[in-house]
Amino acid sequence: MFDPASLKYDANGLIPCIAQQHDSGEVLMLAWMNRDAVARTLSSGRVTYWSRSRRAFWVKGETSGHVQELVELRLDCDRDCLLAIVRQTGPACHTRRRSCFHTALRDGAEVTIMEPVA
Amino acid sequence: MFDPASLKYDANGLIPCIAQQHDSGEVLMLAWMNRDAVARTLSSGRVTYWSRSRRAFWVKGETSGHVQELVELRLDCDRDCLLAIVRQTGPACHTRRRSCFHTALRDGAEVTIMEPVA
Repeated sequence: MFDPASLKYDANGLIPCIAQQHDSGEVLMLAWMNRDAVARTLSSGRVTYWSRSRRAFWVKGETSGHVQELVELRLDCDRDCLLAIVRQTGPACHTRRRSCFHTALRDGAEVTIMEPVA
Repeated sequence: MFDPASLKYDANGLIPCIAQQHDSGEVLMLAWMNRDAVARTLSSGRVTYWSRSRRAFWVKGETSGHVQELVELRLDCDRDCLLAIVRQTGPACHTRRRSCFHTALRDGAEVTIMEPVA
């Protein structure tokens, strides 16, 4: 059986987790998990991060409704990064854009490449 | 003009960067950049990380030939994570698998979902 303790966490006990939309392949966001957040994500099927600013579990979408249903959790070759394949409801970003990566660098300037969803 | 110093780096002066293949949408890997690695990536068009273990710049593919040509660099809403859209030559992973995320958790077990490329 997979044990969340077998992953490599940083000095703060955290591991980065990339969320990717299962069908479109969009990279939605990156946030952090601790060991218990990994366990909760796997047991509940709801992607659950650790909020570094609030120092609390962050069940994605719990207040906004923009939940991330876990399709599959993957880990990298160094066991120090996670990739959550998800079914995202609505926007992933707090700016109401589909992805947090809505700013591109083009010709040395920051360009917004995504508008908020209705 | 975009200034790499305007990004938010962690206590070690690093920012995580996700590499995604431009056409297939595959998430290939996550590695770290410091301010100079961001600048070098943008100026050279070759994705350049900061190796935490070697404490040196890491021009991806410099020794293996498995380079990452930068298509576009994006940043997230918090300015503390980067998404590099790349044209990956060969495998991104040192195990010769296309992506470093070649292990999935299925029914509580670790399953290899990708084989090394020839």
